[in-house]
Amino acid sequence: MLKIAICGATGYTGEELIRLLLNHPKVELTALTASAKMERPVELGQLFPRFAKRATAGLRCESLQPDRLQCDAAFLALPAGVSKEVAPTLLKRGIRVIDLSPDYRLKDAALYPQWYDFSHPHPKLLAQAVYGLPERYRSQLGKAMLVANPGCYATSMILGALPAVEAGLVDGPIVVDAKSGLTGAGRKAETALLFAEIVENVRAYKVNAHRHMPEAAQELTAAAARPMSVVFVPQVVPIKRGMLSNVFIRLTRAMTREAVLELYQRRYAQEPFVRVRANGLPEVRDVTETNYCDLGVTVADDGRLAIVTAVLDNLTKGAAGQAAQNLNLMYGWPETTGLL
Amino acid sequence: MLKIAICGATGYTGEELIRLLLNHPKVELTALTASAKMERPVELGQLFPRFAKRATAGLRCESLQPDRLQCDAAFLALPAGVSKEVAPTLLKRGIRVIDLSPDYRLKDAALYPQWYDFSHPHPKLLAQAVYGLPERYRSQLGKAMLVANPGCYATSMILGALPAVEAGLVDGPIVVDAKSGLTGAGRKAETALLFAEIVENVRAYKVNAHRHMPEAAQELTAAAARPMSVVFVPQVVPIKRGMLSNVFIRLTRAMTREAVLELYQRRYAQEPFVRVRANGLPEVRDVTETNYCDLGVTVADDGRLAIVTAVLDNLTKGAAGQAAQNLNLMYGWPETTGLL
Amino acid sequence: MLKIAICGATGYTGEELIRLLLNHPKVELTALTASAKMERPVELGQLFPRFAKRATAGLRCESLQPDRLQCDAAFLALPAGVSKEVAPTLLKRGIRVIDLSPDYRLKDAALYPQWYDFSHPHPKLLAQAVYGLPERYRSQLGKAMLVANPGCYATSMILGALPAVEAGLVDGPIVVDAKSGLTGAGRKAETALLFAEIVENVRAYKVNAHRHMPEAAQELTAAAARPMSVVFVPQVVPIKRGMLSNVFIRLTRAMTREAVLELYQRRYAQEPFVRVRANGLPEVRDVTETNYCDLGVTVADDGRLAIVTAVLDNLTKGAAGQAAQNLNLMYGWPETTGLL
Amino acid sequence: MLKIAICGATGYTGEELIRLLLNHPKVELTALTASAKMERPVELGQLFPRFAKRATAGLRCESLQPDRLQCDAAFLALPAGVSKEVAPTLLKRGIRVIDLSPDYRLKDAALYPQWYDFSHPHPKLLAQAVYGLPERYRSQLGKAMLVANPGCYATSMILGALPAVEAGLVDGPIVVDAKSGLTGAGRKAETALLFAEIVENVRAYKVNAHRHMPEAAQELTAAAARPMSVVFVPQVVPIKRGMLSNVFIRLTRAMTREAVLELYQRRYAQEPFVRVRANGLPEVRDVTETNYCDLGVTVADDGRLAIVTAVLDNLTKGAAGQAAQNLNLMYGWPETTGLL
Repeated sequence: MLKIAICGATGYTGEELIRLLLNHPKVELTALTASAKMERPVELGQLFPRFAKRATAGLRCESLQPDRLQCDAAFLALPAGVSKEVAPTLLKRGIRVIDLSPDYRLKDAALYPQWYDFSHPHPKLLAQAVYGLPERYRSQLGKAMLVANPGCYATSMILGALPAVEAGLVDGPIVVDAKSGLTGAGRKAETALLFAEIVENVRAYKVNAHRHMPEAAQELTAAAARPMSVVFVPQVVPIKRGMLSNVFIRLTRAMTREAVLELYQRRYAQEPFVRVRANGLPEVRDVTETNYCDLGVTVADDGRLAIVTAVLDNLTKGAAGQAAQNLNLMYGWPETTGLL
Repeated sequence: MLKIAICGATGYTGEELIRLLLNHPKVELTALTASAKMERPVELGQLFPRFAKRATAGLRCESLQPDRLQCDAAFLALPAGVSKEVAPTLLKRGIRVIDLSPDYRLKDAALYPQWYDFSHPHPKLLAQAVYGLPERYRSQLGKAMLVANPGCYATSMILGALPAVEAGLVDGPIVVDAKSGLTGAGRKAETALLFAEIVENVRAYKVNAHRHMPEAAQELTAAAARPMSVVFVPQVVPIKRGMLSNVFIRLTRAMTREAVLELYQRRYAQEPFVRVRANGLPEVRDVTETNYCDLGVTVADDGRLAIVTAVLDNLTKGAAGQAAQNLNLMYGWPETTGLL
Repeated sequence: MLKIAICGATGYTGEELIRLLLNHPKVELTALTASAKMERPVELGQLFPRFAKRATAGLRCESLQPDRLQCDAAFLALPAGVSKEVAPTLLKRGIRVIDLSPDYRLKDAALYPQWYDFSHPHPKLLAQAVYGLPERYRSQLGKAMLVANPGCYATSMILGALPAVEAGLVDGPIVVDAKSGLTGAGRKAETALLFAEIVENVRAYKVNAHRHMPEAAQELTAAAARPMSVVFVPQVVPIKRGMLSNVFIRLTRAMTREAVLELYQRRYAQEPFVRVRANGLPEVRDVTETNYCDLGVTVADDGRLAIVTAVLDNLTKGAAGQAAQNLNLMYGWPETTGLL
Repeated sequence: MLKIAICGATGYTGEELIRLLLNHPKVELTALTASAKMERPVELGQLFPRFAKRATAGLRCESLQPDRLQCDAAFLALPAGVSKEVAPTLLKRGIRVIDLSPDYRLKDAALYPQWYDFSHPHPKLLAQAVYGLPERYRSQLGKAMLVANPGCYATSMILGALPAVEAGLVDGPIVVDAKSGLTGAGRKAETALLFAEIVENVRAYKVNAHRHMPEAAQELTAAAARPMSVVFVPQVVPIKRGMLSNVFIRLTRAMTREAVLELYQRRYAQEPFVRVRANGLPEVRDVTETNYCDLGVTVADDGRLAIVTAVLDNLTKGAAGQAAQNLNLMYGWPETTGLL
């Protein structure tokens, strides 16, 4: 059994990692750490009563001490700016790292001060990190020591646009209108995230200014082998988990729905966690608590505009599930292990 | 006091009409009818216990008999295809009609078989009907005998696009991504509308095939004085009432956010129920149970793409509130009477 | 027009006071203050965009300075422990006070250190304060300078039990199982109140230890003229506003449902804001955004147990609406002014 | 692999059975049938897109033909009144049956016409059926051919009261105030179950008249070896799945919280799916999508009233999970197989 640490176990992503890894047949949880300082260790069964009376319920969550963490591989579900120092310490100790924060996602170090308010202290590690999107980097993940797990919005944008981008069919910026559940914002005590502020409400925020934009643009540019830009409108809707992104793609030539659909089906035919819907469109609930990203296709404007509807669970395929998928690839296990 | 009938009082729109008109100082509810056949009359206080113990709680809701309805003006909150025969009967009896159904919204009778599965029996009345959007047709509403009250989605699309359209700034189709509450679907016993199907879900439906599209295209074409087309992605989100529509407008020339904002502010400066937000973007809750449509502006793609975020309450400015606003205009009362 | 100040305008109760008083024909809002220190004044239309473009949208919300507040009457929607010093300052200046906090609700000063962690500095004022439940103290409210507006849970418990208590029919403690919306917890940045913690959840808290218990016991004891005790189980359910309380009353003798119902109907026959349902039971939505408390009656255990189901909107009849009702009584206006 | 049929696969309970059994290592789904007549068979991946791309996604759901069903054991997730004829047909063919409907729960055939509007055609089978509550009937379940799986409310009532009942500590009727999610009402196209009727609402229904009452009374009477009665107040709250029941138990003698807690902890110490909380109270989310029933204890009224707070997921421990637990017992597998 591979020994696993989860750093940042108290947040929503950490909790989802625990849920998934408790049922993973190849791993054993050996360390949980809180993102914030804890006064004293807390047992898993106390931290999250839903896990009480399980074999590992007595496992304790402690403050993070990177130089003493006992594990073979570590998941870092930490706030932006924290992983960037934790990851190198673990790597030096031979621990493989799956970083769910944004600290190693951007290849161009110059983007960090611009988007994340810090200068990156380890630009060489940025080059070594593998962007953890199996649908793009499967072959590189097997040898990766450091995986930068994609953002939830970015995953939906990239998977929704990738076939068209790779086929060189995209004209102009890709426009994405996305609706996310509240766990995407993290377990943070902020007035704007209160139940009574969210229920019966829909709110757009950080329009064309969200941090997942440079990440999506980087990956789509790499896939296109020419600069790609993204216009992004994120919104919160009153759901706990899940996301629906409409990806509007202006096509370089008029195409039928059948042609676009076939392109997408062919591209993802071998993918275990991408499902392209032949009829109708996917809904958020089709993927809730699963690692699937489901896609549906509409064509409008006389064949010049493709609308790809992408749904995923922001905590699963958008975070912890994709991280576990990456773990499977890193250790050569069947990719769906523990995820069906 | 003007005598008012509400036909279709048992649906969500009918209920909202009752709520608003009970507090309107110039009118008196004298007749309520159900859309479906009722076995026997039901008192308002029984039909909707929230209205019990009010002065009018004893008013009875009965089956609709257009030739015997007692009122000066009637609101028709009826399903598509029913008003088309009820309205002429009432008009012949001298009763002014505000039709909240789609039956008199489209000027081109040929569109009805295409979008609504019926041939229109009174094409001449289509020409006489005034489309009840005060921001476009205020001057004609004063004399109108028959008002075709706009659809909720259409209101958000038209108000969100109108200033740019009128200024001739729109290049290509207008793309609208809209999220609506469930009252928009009506009080219909359908499995797809059950609580357990909607909560924790987001669902796109009738993508680029929704009936509010020809209505919006008709009005934007009229405003532009040249053909305008709309690509429309409607979605349901788990809220009861309210709607947020992002209107994506490709501009004929690059503009700053300030310039677009000023255009919108100037266009709506005198409008009592349209508010253009100078900073930030409106949220659904800013307009819940009000007759306002709030607009916010973002500019992307180096000034070539304007994103107008429009929010309104689908039952108020999207239906009953706009209908009451139209009533005020029809009778020469201050436009905000009973609506603040 | 009576000049009104709202102290604590930024919370949910303050916002509801603004909503109600903007439509009250006898008053004028002249001062809004925030509960916390504000760096600089904020216009009402900025603080709550829903009130933008109204006549009073320019009214500014400032930090509270009790000795300079300009008004005839003040509503204090302040946290526990703040009003106790603000109220005396205002009263000395001749300003009538409606305190929506708990600071003047308990007659026995000794209860404050026990339930609220402070010793009461003005025990004589406790005697002068009138408990603002019109259904009990209507005649005293006309002359009141200081009204202690009841808690939301307490209002539902007292109105649900009062007829049985006054009739001497209660045997043993009254057991109340209550479910409340989240606005009852206030606009506080706490993790436990986040959307993602509340949706798809039901949580009991402070079971038999909630601060509204001594208040309800005090009032029921006064009504019974003998000691009455309450067992209280409060719960949060995922709604924004509204409350349903089941009041379980063991009867001193077996009674039919008809007899209990008649007792309740008779007791509240003249009350403008209490509605006793002859058939069926009230639901939360029957009273949402209204000042009504609706009651329904079930009898079980061979006539020995009455179950009174009480619903009200925690922000309206449970707070701001009842406060406005009290204002109407204090100034001799019709009790329903501005509240229908 | 044991061959399994799910009859009534299209409802919420059927869907949950599929979710659980797809991950059960000892069984194989070989037949799915719809409760209503289907025009033609539908593949599982089409019926529920969430199960698409799984190994069994091609399995087809067909109309129910009891005499041709291919399986070793069948789960009947059918409406009341349907199983009573299906079960005998299957049993005759040697198929073991777990009936999730109420048709074989009541031992006294005379109760059926009273509570379910039908006379029971197979009263002898009622005696043979084992009530599928492992915490009571574990030893009998191993040999059972026909298991009557308990109702969701009944499970929470019985598990919440059982230790006190068995210890002879209960004085008078047990009062239960329960709040349930909407999947408990089934996937039925009824206006009262629409999203817009449920959100922002709480509703009590069938107070002291719900069909789970006789079932709970039967089992508590058996456990007490003397007549026990239940007063039951069921309510719907706006959640999809989950239930919180407060069980109010008047004690025959004053007890401390510690004493009651110890009684409960001792009674359930060996139970794999009942967790008694030492501190605090369980919340619905602690058990969502798990097979646990969590219990918490409060003592009030000077030790004379115990309040047991029981939470469970109505679809899991309240239906499909408990059914799978029963299956495990019937076949001698570890009780938690496929359920952790």
